[in-house]
Amino acid sequence: MKNASKKGNVDILDFDKYFLQHIAIDTVILGFREAKMMVLLLQYKNTKGYALPGGFIFKNENINDAARRILKDRTGLDNIYLEQFYTFGDTSRQDKSMQQILKARGIKPPKDHFLLDRFISIGYYALVNCAHTSPTKDALSDDCKWVDIKKIPQLIQDHNKMIERALHCLRKDLDQKLIALNLMPETFTMNELQTLYETIQGKKIRRTSFQRKIINMDIVTMVKKKMTGAANKAPYLYKFKLRK
Amino acid sequence: MKNASKKGNVDILDFDKYFLQHIAIDTVILGFREAKMMVLLLQYKNTKGYALPGGFIFKNENINDAARRILKDRTGLDNIYLEQFYTFGDTSRQDKSMQQILKARGIKPPKDHFLLDRFISIGYYALVNCAHTSPTKDALSDDCKWVDIKKIPQLIQDHNKMIERALHCLRKDLDQKLIALNLMPETFTMNELQTLYETIQGKKIRRTSFQRKIINMDIVTMVKKKMTGAANKAPYLYKFKLRK
Repeated sequence: MKNASKKGNVDILDFDKYFLQHIAIDTVILGFREAKMMVLLLQYKNTKGYALPGGFIFKNENINDAARRILKDRTGLDNIYLEQFYTFGDTSRQDKSMQQILKARGIKPPKDHFLLDRFISIGYYALVNCAHTSPTKDALSDDCKWVDIKKIPQLIQDHNKMIERALHCLRKDLDQKLIALNLMPETFTMNELQTLYETIQGKKIRRTSFQRKIINMDIVTMVKKKMTGAANKAPYLYKFKLRK
Repeated sequence: MKNASKKGNVDILDFDKYFLQHIAIDTVILGFREAKMMVLLLQYKNTKGYALPGGFIFKNENINDAARRILKDRTGLDNIYLEQFYTFGDTSRQDKSMQQILKARGIKPPKDHFLLDRFISIGYYALVNCAHTSPTKDALSDDCKWVDIKKIPQLIQDHNKMIERALHCLRKDLDQKLIALNLMPETFTMNELQTLYETIQGKKIRRTSFQRKIINMDIVTMVKKKMTGAANKAPYLYKFKLRK
């Protein structure tokens, strides 16, 4: 059991040499798959535990860079729109979950060890296309996978609340974020855009009021008719005016 | 100089015994005075430095409670609407400012001391009526006072950016926050409400469009005519429907 904490070249019990104490990052990585909204979860098989992907901050690393690094490590994705939405710091966050996860792997840290300390966690969310990701587990987990947000199991600590709050923040000003989120192809139909909105908002929207709203927002421009067999029934294609 | 760091019963150099490492709170306390928006600043006379009021988090304290404690210590106010708006964690935040502030007071911490470490700061803002506050300096400052937000001096570290971001967040969904902010008297005229909006937004609003917007938001209810000499010119008084 002496080397149970070794993962690659780094001993997990040596983490305090590299990372800031008392502070962590947790990420709510939301994804689309077939008009369903999913969230990326880690699984700890020996403990039946599920958790959001997270990590620590290197002593000389910007926190936003740490969040991007964690997102890349878990999904393979770079340059994704990532938003800091809340910092979670109730003392009730400190529970036995980390101890259990470590124990299930045969790692027994000393009682006053860094990993068992109180952590304040900075929450970030991202929104990605599931098809573009390669979910990858971290040093302590046994699996990393997409789970339908309507079927989220009980997660460790306050991670269920984190997802709720991330969804609330995302939905609150979706209009402003839509372009930055970069989820649509170069050109798209009004129906495709409506499906994206409905999936994120978790409810149906009336077609006429949706179209009026998008036109009023003045964020899309018409490109051309989509080429299908029936020319006169082909829907119009749009693109974002401010696409980066 | 041996006891230069002593303040009351607590030695500032002993702070690491009580507080979490690497993490601080900074507060953007905004206030109204005669239709002007002010911000509460601390002044360090020996260094010409100005800063936002801030503080550390006790090892067993919720972060939101810490923010309320700091707000109360600096203003005397309890039960004020306080919103966490962003966590600042760039490595460039670490500079010589704390060292200079301590030096100007004759306090020389060891090089690896807690106070000189990298801090990640959780930003909170509050909005209060200046007349209800009693600005009080903290253990390291020489003054605590209201400054017009149009005349903010250069502050230490990233504190000017913190104010900008707090104002942006506050203005972004002012409508939803207006009631919670609890800044109006029990009853008020439409003109008084408009002045509040204009002061926070930092710009004039057309009277007719403001009134239409407030009526459409359906948050106020008409109470009665304000009693003045000229009865037929007296403005109507309103109150918030959901006032807590």
